[in-house]
Amino acid sequence: MIIHHLHGSEIFIGENALNSLPDWLGAHVTSKRVFVLVDHQTELSCLPLFISVMHSRYEIVKITIPAGERNKTLELCVYVWNRLLDYNAVKSDVLISLGGGMITDLGGLAASLYKRGMNFVHIPTSLMGMTDAAIGGKTAVDFNNIKNAIGLFSNPKSIFIDPVFLLSLPEREIANGWAEVVKHSLIADVSIWNDLPVDVFACPSFDLLLRSIAVKLTVVHDDFEEKGKRKILNFGHTIGHAIETIHLESRTVLLHGEAVVWGMLVETEIAVKKNLISADKAILIQQKLITFFCLDKLKTINGDQLINFLLQDKKNEQNKFLFSLITDIGNCSWNCEVEAEVILSSVQKFISVQ
Amino acid sequence: MIIHHLHGSEIFIGENALNSLPDWLGAHVTSKRVFVLVDHQTELSCLPLFISVMHSRYEIVKITIPAGERNKTLELCVYVWNRLLDYNAVKSDVLISLGGGMITDLGGLAASLYKRGMNFVHIPTSLMGMTDAAIGGKTAVDFNNIKNAIGLFSNPKSIFIDPVFLLSLPEREIANGWAEVVKHSLIADVSIWNDLPVDVFACPSFDLLLRSIAVKLTVVHDDFEEKGKRKILNFGHTIGHAIETIHLESRTVLLHGEAVVWGMLVETEIAVKKNLISADKAILIQQKLITFFCLDKLKTINGDQLINFLLQDKKNEQNKFLFSLITDIGNCSWNCEVEAEVILSSVQKFISVQ
Repeated sequence: MIIHHLHGSEIFIGENALNSLPDWLGAHVTSKRVFVLVDHQTELSCLPLFISVMHSRYEIVKITIPAGERNKTLELCVYVWNRLLDYNAVKSDVLISLGGGMITDLGGLAASLYKRGMNFVHIPTSLMGMTDAAIGGKTAVDFNNIKNAIGLFSNPKSIFIDPVFLLSLPEREIANGWAEVVKHSLIADVSIWNDLPVDVFACPSFDLLLRSIAVKLTVVHDDFEEKGKRKILNFGHTIGHAIETIHLESRTVLLHGEAVVWGMLVETEIAVKKNLISADKAILIQQKLITFFCLDKLKTINGDQLINFLLQDKKNEQNKFLFSLITDIGNCSWNCEVEAEVILSSVQKFISVQ
Repeated sequence: MIIHHLHGSEIFIGENALNSLPDWLGAHVTSKRVFVLVDHQTELSCLPLFISVMHSRYEIVKITIPAGERNKTLELCVYVWNRLLDYNAVKSDVLISLGGGMITDLGGLAASLYKRGMNFVHIPTSLMGMTDAAIGGKTAVDFNNIKNAIGLFSNPKSIFIDPVFLLSLPEREIANGWAEVVKHSLIADVSIWNDLPVDVFACPSFDLLLRSIAVKLTVVHDDFEEKGKRKILNFGHTIGHAIETIHLESRTVLLHGEAVVWGMLVETEIAVKKNLISADKAILIQQKLITFFCLDKLKTINGDQLINFLLQDKKNEQNKFLFSLITDIGNCSWNCEVEAEVILSSVQKFISVQ
């Protein structure tokens, strides 16, 4: 088992990491009960193992919310607060989020605000959660169809990353998680890029999982509040968030990682137009993205909606469009100013704009 | 003018402190517009002066919400977020809360959560706000009729405390603010107690205002996140919050400070029963409280409701009732365990329990 420390969080990574949870709670939390936040999927696929590991040492109060990014809302945060109040939860109780990024984002926010902060712990169960969402203290809910518009930086007391949960994931969720692994390779670690397997629907090796987590840990360690370098983690996410947000309003389900893959394709193109990366290197990256993620057709989006959502992006200042753009495989710059025309023409290479 | 630094906040105190705001903004905020949060009262009584001080250097976007503790709700926080989104506000914009504790509590929370934190500044306009609410980084809204149930610790970039705003306060609001001044004297500074004037409806001298603020600054400086000593600021507030909460559900308006005065009366009695303070000293304190605050009749509350709300108090752990209790004028202990019977019998000395 590997243990990291990051801005007040203890992070346990390894086979059977979950088994360390009861002892960790015994040493760090006075309460003899735990609140566990799950969605309807992780309630079925992950909660039984969680309960068996906790056996009879803790009273477990389950809070279940619907699955899916569409439910990462303030309304469901309110539901969690009401459940906590029903049980007279106090600051010294602990809320354990057992699920993917939606559950840890929402659970972290709910716990951080409940009575000005109760204890909380993350147990990411998706590949996306393990390599990205659960690490780094970003909590949020979507608001008015804007991704993560309401939230704060707040670190869980501990994070337990146990690959056992990956075994229960559907293939589409595995591919979704690979998007962040690939992003980590492109912004900071060419060795991950070189070791990418052929099959996007298979779990990464434990070694590759660790290297991907290491990228996130290093970047967050250096710049917790995203004043500078942490912005490189936004590569693929400026366009990706806009595409994801537009889909939140439609009936088609588009996962976060799927939107980020389209975002990386487009933002690599922007990097070419801004002379940050060579056209040859960009084509190589884009072809690999298309092959690895099995993309077979153009996305279709509304161009006006896209620009409108970019204007709302948290990363933009004073109506300038600011991007994090790769300069090579394994290197990324941030705060790159990009003009609206460059964005639209880059989008049009991969996406059908109406 | 006096300038303090407290956990990342710059605090300007003095006649004409407000005049320093435009230069401070010029030096610390890139945006050329400011969002100003007011309630229907401060919009009339304080906003004109604010606008005249800002003259034409900044575009001012006004956000107005209803006045009164009953409106310190998540729903009005949502209203503020929607207004910020209407104007595409970004993290580098600034939200200035111009009002009493309700406005700075809600404004601080709204700004801290908007896009994971935009700049914010407090300009307290009430005596309560200047001596207590605006200082120390506590932000919150009430939730399900529980005072400050949802919130976080988050410091404004700066606070401007200008006594000019006290001139516009109604008498009842002045008396309300004196409750916290008196509390500061009882927990930490006997010299304030000795210098209390006769008239609770007159503004304190600037010197007394400064000494009261100094108590708050010192306590918060030593223990920002209320792990220990900061709990002394809760003297009078455990019972006070319960009484205030019960009144939130009724039609009678009871101000925070008014509830805290009743809380101090009862909690001084609890301190006697717990042998923390002599009966003689307690009587002296209680008589002064009754005289100074012109209390003339018993309050009436429901005893079951009282205990029920105490169980929900953020300060309680594992169903023990924890109080901050004075041991002398100018001294206070915290984490004092008190039994339900002691609480009820102390309440009954001053309050008619149904």
